[in-house]
Amino acid sequence: MDIPVVKLADVQANKPDIPITLSRVGVTNVKKLVEVSRADKRPIILISNFDIFVDLPSDRKGANLSRNFEAIDEVLEESINLPVCEIEELCGEVAKRLLDRHEYATKAEVRMKSEYIVKRITPVNKVKCQQVVDIFAEAIANRQENGKVFVNKMVGAEVLGLTACPCAQEIMRDKAIAELKRLNVDSKTIYEFLNTVPMATHNQRGRGIVTIQVSHHHKVSIDKIVHIIETSMSSSIYELLKRNDEAMLVENAHKNPKFVEDCVRTMAKKIVNDFSDIPDESIITIKQINEESIHSHNAFAERIATLGELKTELSMN
Amino acid sequence: MDIPVVKLADVQANKPDIPITLSRVGVTNVKKLVEVSRADKRPIILISNFDIFVDLPSDRKGANLSRNFEAIDEVLEESINLPVCEIEELCGEVAKRLLDRHEYATKAEVRMKSEYIVKRITPVNKVKCQQVVDIFAEAIANRQENGKVFVNKMVGAEVLGLTACPCAQEIMRDKAIAELKRLNVDSKTIYEFLNTVPMATHNQRGRGIVTIQVSHHHKVSIDKIVHIIETSMSSSIYELLKRNDEAMLVENAHKNPKFVEDCVRTMAKKIVNDFSDIPDESIITIKQINEESIHSHNAFAERIATLGELKTELSMN
Amino acid sequence: MDIPVVKLADVQANKPDIPITLSRVGVTNVKKLVEVSRADKRPIILISNFDIFVDLPSDRKGANLSRNFEAIDEVLEESINLPVCEIEELCGEVAKRLLDRHEYATKAEVRMKSEYIVKRITPVNKVKCQQVVDIFAEAIANRQENGKVFVNKMVGAEVLGLTACPCAQEIMRDKAIAELKRLNVDSKTIYEFLNTVPMATHNQRGRGIVTIQVSHHHKVSIDKIVHIIETSMSSSIYELLKRNDEAMLVENAHKNPKFVEDCVRTMAKKIVNDFSDIPDESIITIKQINEESIHSHNAFAERIATLGELKTELSMN
Amino acid sequence: MDIPVVKLADVQANKPDIPITLSRVGVTNVKKLVEVSRADKRPIILISNFDIFVDLPSDRKGANLSRNFEAIDEVLEESINLPVCEIEELCGEVAKRLLDRHEYATKAEVRMKSEYIVKRITPVNKVKCQQVVDIFAEAIANRQENGKVFVNKMVGAEVLGLTACPCAQEIMRDKAIAELKRLNVDSKTIYEFLNTVPMATHNQRGRGIVTIQVSHHHKVSIDKIVHIIETSMSSSIYELLKRNDEAMLVENAHKNPKFVEDCVRTMAKKIVNDFSDIPDESIITIKQINEESIHSHNAFAERIATLGELKTELSMN
Repeated sequence: MDIPVVKLADVQANKPDIPITLSRVGVTNVKKLVEVSRADKRPIILISNFDIFVDLPSDRKGANLSRNFEAIDEVLEESINLPVCEIEELCGEVAKRLLDRHEYATKAEVRMKSEYIVKRITPVNKVKCQQVVDIFAEAIANRQENGKVFVNKMVGAEVLGLTACPCAQEIMRDKAIAELKRLNVDSKTIYEFLNTVPMATHNQRGRGIVTIQVSHHHKVSIDKIVHIIETSMSSSIYELLKRNDEAMLVENAHKNPKFVEDCVRTMAKKIVNDFSDIPDESIITIKQINEESIHSHNAFAERIATLGELKTELSMN
Repeated sequence: MDIPVVKLADVQANKPDIPITLSRVGVTNVKKLVEVSRADKRPIILISNFDIFVDLPSDRKGANLSRNFEAIDEVLEESINLPVCEIEELCGEVAKRLLDRHEYATKAEVRMKSEYIVKRITPVNKVKCQQVVDIFAEAIANRQENGKVFVNKMVGAEVLGLTACPCAQEIMRDKAIAELKRLNVDSKTIYEFLNTVPMATHNQRGRGIVTIQVSHHHKVSIDKIVHIIETSMSSSIYELLKRNDEAMLVENAHKNPKFVEDCVRTMAKKIVNDFSDIPDESIITIKQINEESIHSHNAFAERIATLGELKTELSMN
Repeated sequence: MDIPVVKLADVQANKPDIPITLSRVGVTNVKKLVEVSRADKRPIILISNFDIFVDLPSDRKGANLSRNFEAIDEVLEESINLPVCEIEELCGEVAKRLLDRHEYATKAEVRMKSEYIVKRITPVNKVKCQQVVDIFAEAIANRQENGKVFVNKMVGAEVLGLTACPCAQEIMRDKAIAELKRLNVDSKTIYEFLNTVPMATHNQRGRGIVTIQVSHHHKVSIDKIVHIIETSMSSSIYELLKRNDEAMLVENAHKNPKFVEDCVRTMAKKIVNDFSDIPDESIITIKQINEESIHSHNAFAERIATLGELKTELSMN
Repeated sequence: MDIPVVKLADVQANKPDIPITLSRVGVTNVKKLVEVSRADKRPIILISNFDIFVDLPSDRKGANLSRNFEAIDEVLEESINLPVCEIEELCGEVAKRLLDRHEYATKAEVRMKSEYIVKRITPVNKVKCQQVVDIFAEAIANRQENGKVFVNKMVGAEVLGLTACPCAQEIMRDKAIAELKRLNVDSKTIYEFLNTVPMATHNQRGRGIVTIQVSHHHKVSIDKIVHIIETSMSSSIYELLKRNDEAMLVENAHKNPKFVEDCVRTMAKKIVNDFSDIPDESIITIKQINEESIHSHNAFAERIATLGELKTELSMN
């Protein structure tokens, strides 16, 4: 009698015991050093975090997932040496190669996130400082009926800023008016004063998040996204502030108070203005999270829409 | 001349400067002590984390978001004293009340997550011990054209267990066969031995996650979900294991090796078997994440489908 | 020939290959449902996180760490049913029992942390709301030369509040003075106005942390610690604020601006005042972390001292 | 009457209202892009996280903490352009410069942590892959009575690996022996078989952590620390494993089972062997955390000692 040694390779082409299709099979939290070459600038070095998936039909046991893992890592190792220009193209390249190797898969997804340093210059003293922002990209490669592969990609960023609450400020302003009137200051003086010196309110760290999803032949600049988020809150923030920089920041922020809703709407308008070159069916996700200083919970607003829908709403103004 | 004091209340009914609709406006990370009364058991005390949103039309400035926050908290305070029976009903109740108060909103969403203690009994020594699992629920209340409110809800859990890798075990088994043959042990003995004593492999913490989304008049038992996840990995885990409990657990897990795909498919089958009372259009999300002991990344598999789709795939076996 | 079956139990009493003493051997991140009975109030239900250690001499292989784990869990299961009155006593009880069972150990350490709900009443509308704070306790049981066991314990809390920056406010105040003077408002009026209406500044979430370490027969009230931290920042925060509550909070906070240093010093003074009943050698750790709204980094201040040292410094005022 | 404008600069030299000394005042979670030049290799680019503190005497109001922040950032900006060779020297340089600028401070502390990529080669197929490890450094500059500054520094790393449990394996081995005997396999054959094929056990991700604290003129290689941690567990782990690499890894790990205590003791021995060039008073902290696959809690062991103490204990073997 011979021992029925089960040949693993054969098993894997067999039907699984439970013939359920899987939407995603892969690896998450893969950290890689990525060197992104950029048109006319120094390459950027990032430690990036990848999630990588393919789908799996119901008639494959999938036990070759371990081979799958090997392939995923090999592809990634190769891809990071490609002369890609942007992180979403890196994701797209990995996704396409995954489909090449996995003839049974109809979809490959690659997600990447990383910290990214941007330079800022303080408002008064013009001091240069570094600001870390979070950037992310995603690519989904779909195999069409005719065998062609179509890639959709997403690019996004999360940026910190300061938001000052308009509501509490309104009440503090009313209090200032009442007090100045009580002290017999005339209305014109009060009006001029309050136009120059903004009243107090609670303010806090805000986090703006924008992602833009387009088909693969359109370009979306991450730096443009970062700039839109940064300038849609009450004020930018800086890691290094001399005293008069700090004063200017506080004054400007209090002259520009914003709710979470205002931040999202401002970002929506800027995206419509600044991304005129991508198609109307591009999907835009805009979020604002304020880490309320008067509560331990956060305030939150979000809009998910196509670029076309945003354009329509704005034009109906 | 009089100072043009801006009346905040009036402003809020005005059109905003940027007339963009918001998909979600609300609060996140609200922590509340929740007492959930249960049919024939002691009430459960949970410290729960809530995210609560309504949508906001483009013609509302939304500055009354602050009033909105007040309402949200009041509703929550009231709701936790209701005689609700399950956490998803608590979420549904909060969502409905939000729509009552916000006449302009068409949708209210309430998400809740919490740690939850389940009791386990160890396999050999029958020692009782506590296991913490994560549970979550969500309710979405939609206002229909006719003014009626329709509530969808989601219930889910994330449970830890142990998964042993079938692939590495197969190779260790081949090695054992080769070695026993070299030592002139006969095939029948080898076969019997390997049937009784499972060979080594890498194993690790696995995390199974299931969510089930149904319309509001259907019940989904969280305890049933927790049990399905727990029993779909290579073995349950326990906080307290005497030596022979530990041995039995290791042996059983190695006799039941599972890839991430296997875990997801097993959960899918058990959901079809155990939730025959919910409609076919219920949306099921099943995930398995293995914190691979041989890598620093994780293995991942996921299926998102309606219950009906899962039934069809299984019946095609 | 017989197979040299190594008896595990015997091995463990042997010397290890590498005779190194271990400072701590044990388990971390053990989650347990804890019911703390309290003198004249309802018991508190907490999901607590425990770290539990004993030391291990260099002449023990320590392979019986697995038996150790069993014991640790059993002790914990027993202890949570004890009629203890405070969480640090629960830790002390577990620590003492660990030493009972581990004759070779000279020290047992038990650390516990948990979320804890406190009730707050808003300043104007007197609305009751819940606030989650973090509490923690630690007990170290030392076996003396004479065999007696001496227990030291530590109790602490981390509480969120609001801090408003005095420095930026000073500049905004100077700007207000200059502007009012330019508008020919007289000095007395300016002075009165600024005394009533505080000027703007950046403000943010602050986190105050206090731990107090005493020998086991002294009592330290966690509620008192929570209250000291809460009242040492610019303002308490609340989960539910009606509009005039919010206005009062913002006004009060801006009339009470505080640097991280000020918060730590205020807490130090209150601890000296409120804990007159614990010995001078009690070790006090006080920290303040401000999540700066104008930076993405945090401001931090800390004092570690005995209560006696704090008293001496304060009396030298 | 003139308004008593408080001059901030003057206030700061005044005594504070509460004359309490502060142990640490500074900033935490400062993220900076750091380029570390290395003797004969390419410079390393790191996104590093810094905590930076000075002490503050009781007679300084400390309101110039904001000036302090400015200085801290400037120093950091300058320092990262220095031709330093190791991260602990970068920390030391920042700490010394902080003392230069803050004449009142007696101590400056700088802590830094970062992700760091190391290269690994798989055991069988010799495939190169990247592994991310965590590295950290700290420098404490103390101003002596005579005005001289003395710097202590600390270097450390946290590395993931695989640990296999010796205890459960022993029981599985006993079971294998019993079963082979029952099948009439002779003892010599059983013995040979078990020497070649290791039996199953639970295994999991382990995290080893080593820090070494020395005075500033001694060098401590981070790469050496990383290597010691990696090689003190049951096996190294790799991001990319072909099938026979995976088999070899599993086999080797199961032939080298280790408790948390064993890992700590192995690291202690290797540190004594490999760091013969640093003084005996160097403080060594060694930790091992196993993310137990059979529990949801972790196993933990730690030793804190001087290098001299470790040498003494080892020589008493």
